[in-house]
Amino acid sequence: MNPPIIDIERLVGELQQLATISDCPEPPPAVTRVVFTETDLRARDYLRSLYEAAGLAVRVDAIGNTFARWEGSEPSLGAVGTGSHCDAIPHAGLYDGTVGVLGGLEAIRALQAAGFQPRRSIEVVMFTSEEPTRFGVGCTGSRLMSGAMSPADLVKLTDEVGDDYDTVRKRAGFSGDLASAKLPNGYYEAFVELHIEQGPELEANDLAIGVVTAIAAPAQADFTVTGEGGHAGAVLMPRRRDALIASAAMVSAIDSVARASKSPDMVATVGKLEVHPGAVNSIPSRVRFTLDLRDIDGANRDAVLKEIEDEVDRIAVERGVKVEHRILNADPPAISDKNVVSAAVSAAESLNLGYQEMISRAYHDSLFMARVAPMGMIFIPCRGGVSHRPDEYSSPEAIAAGVQALALTLASLAG
Amino acid sequence: MNPPIIDIERLVGELQQLATISDCPEPPPAVTRVVFTETDLRARDYLRSLYEAAGLAVRVDAIGNTFARWEGSEPSLGAVGTGSHCDAIPHAGLYDGTVGVLGGLEAIRALQAAGFQPRRSIEVVMFTSEEPTRFGVGCTGSRLMSGAMSPADLVKLTDEVGDDYDTVRKRAGFSGDLASAKLPNGYYEAFVELHIEQGPELEANDLAIGVVTAIAAPAQADFTVTGEGGHAGAVLMPRRRDALIASAAMVSAIDSVARASKSPDMVATVGKLEVHPGAVNSIPSRVRFTLDLRDIDGANRDAVLKEIEDEVDRIAVERGVKVEHRILNADPPAISDKNVVSAAVSAAESLNLGYQEMISRAYHDSLFMARVAPMGMIFIPCRGGVSHRPDEYSSPEAIAAGVQALALTLASLAG
Repeated sequence: MNPPIIDIERLVGELQQLATISDCPEPPPAVTRVVFTETDLRARDYLRSLYEAAGLAVRVDAIGNTFARWEGSEPSLGAVGTGSHCDAIPHAGLYDGTVGVLGGLEAIRALQAAGFQPRRSIEVVMFTSEEPTRFGVGCTGSRLMSGAMSPADLVKLTDEVGDDYDTVRKRAGFSGDLASAKLPNGYYEAFVELHIEQGPELEANDLAIGVVTAIAAPAQADFTVTGEGGHAGAVLMPRRRDALIASAAMVSAIDSVARASKSPDMVATVGKLEVHPGAVNSIPSRVRFTLDLRDIDGANRDAVLKEIEDEVDRIAVERGVKVEHRILNADPPAISDKNVVSAAVSAAESLNLGYQEMISRAYHDSLFMARVAPMGMIFIPCRGGVSHRPDEYSSPEAIAAGVQALALTLASLAG
Repeated sequence: MNPPIIDIERLVGELQQLATISDCPEPPPAVTRVVFTETDLRARDYLRSLYEAAGLAVRVDAIGNTFARWEGSEPSLGAVGTGSHCDAIPHAGLYDGTVGVLGGLEAIRALQAAGFQPRRSIEVVMFTSEEPTRFGVGCTGSRLMSGAMSPADLVKLTDEVGDDYDTVRKRAGFSGDLASAKLPNGYYEAFVELHIEQGPELEANDLAIGVVTAIAAPAQADFTVTGEGGHAGAVLMPRRRDALIASAAMVSAIDSVARASKSPDMVATVGKLEVHPGAVNSIPSRVRFTLDLRDIDGANRDAVLKEIEDEVDRIAVERGVKVEHRILNADPPAISDKNVVSAAVSAAESLNLGYQEMISRAYHDSLFMARVAPMGMIFIPCRGGVSHRPDEYSSPEAIAAGVQALALTLASLAG
């Protein structure tokens, strides 16, 4: 088929419109959109209006995963899925996830405009809560769809004010049976996600397309350090068991252990750290912090995780504080499906787009979709490799090229 | 005169009633009461009702400092002041400050009941915002009353959401001319504050009364560390300029420098530390933390403060981050007035209460009142020296003894 024509002006306009639906005190491109907030719900309404305008049939599952379906000529066959997420961590940018959702929609619209009639249905999915912001665990939508997490484990998750996942989703209007969200066998013939790279390689190599062959293995944990509080003026230094002083040593140790690892891909991040009670003149009695640890080798990552836990325990004893740690997830890596990779490579080649095969160090809903469908991902370059920041940026040309490659890949997979 | 009779049941009841006016999610004894919140205003209403029931004339100045006056037989003479604060840091206890306000009221009621007629008027003061929780600077009420801070400097202070002091006080209903809050010369003939010790000495020495001869010099500063954010999965360790990793090294250095100081009274506390953007999978781009540094020797404290600033700058260079620091206050120590000390000592002796002279390492509104009035403080023991925590506790007997000593001290100073 001829290259489908992407209406990039419309697509960029929709990305920018979606970015205005934000809880960030700063205007776009700064975006904050946390799952099951009023803002998240408004974003979902906006998406639905676009899906319906494109004639897609919309289905929402028990935790808000949203499926917009372009029915194929043989609707009983397994469908071809694409899509990503629309939630955004505090003070993020406007491309992460959204390019895969709105770009997926645009790919369908371009195929429709080109007069293409798919044999298999094509669906664009908006996954609930790819980001772990609210419940500490990311990809709850795709975990539940793929069976990577059970409904029983899901409802145990709580947000910062102690509300559990089940209460919060119901309050947001998602009330179905959680077990029903698990996809039936064969529901998807293939799943392919379009996403910004969130790293510097494509830009550095001046390539338009990254075809992902594997997704790195992330682990996340949280630590609660309990010392003894008191008045900052009255308790002398030798008598202190300051939870923050101990936590500072632990955070430094995490950095050192990760840097000392032999793997160049090992990354460790303490992204959240909260001090209790949090007053200038009060000795911290309790600190909670998180750990995000990744490597492309799962066993290597688990060894470093163990080393970090040991080091944290040692520091707790040394500083006279207590520490509890809890591994929130330690998922195995995912390998892309050969046919999906090959369809994406063919799409890039037929469009004369420079491409490379590459590994995703960031994780995505596709990590879990790989458990229930042959999976692949298409990356596009983003400026400086920057993501999770307001200055995250992919050019309209880069987005258009990615959507065009996605459209051809979907067309090829949907037959 | 005979020892005035303290209605300790009434006083403890009032302390407990006041503690129910709290924003702490936990019930009393946990208390959170931050200046100019609805809760602060409700506490002020409660106090006013008690003052009026005792026949005291209530005056409120431009930032909410509240004066409850028992008129003396020679009202044109300089008054004798007592009092303290009722604001409470997050998750604090119910005795810090409140014992001086409600105890001051009870001292007046006991003198009234004993038929005492003061020559000088006696006033109990409730100072606005002794705690630095909201605006980063403590004792704004007594700073303004004493001229230690100008109205121009006061209105520059902002709270965490960026609202300035002037806006917030007006929103809370305090709208007078800020300059009018400065006390006229000779307004107070003497000022004496009753307070829990917030340290372990009196309990350890089994003494009922501490007569404070000097208040240690506190310094407070804040630090903003700016690095580079990004996605936790995508930016490799050697390329990172993580604001939290740098801050952890700085916090550790603050602890080390203070411990290495030759002064056994040197205490350094990082009580607040906030991470931006604060998501589990986002590299911290910015961290703000506070420093509270105290010693009984102002010059020694300033030398350590300088050493900490140098060390923080060195670490910033080493870690490739920027750091700004700002000294919020570095007040000189205050020395108690001989006559006030002697009146308090005589009161303790005439009541057969064990006492000692001592230094206050915590600071108080009296630190600033010392600039405009002969000043003294009376301490009572608190369990384990614990303060700024829900388990802060002074026994009814300890409070009654302190209020009795305060009543006699006020009677002696008021003539």
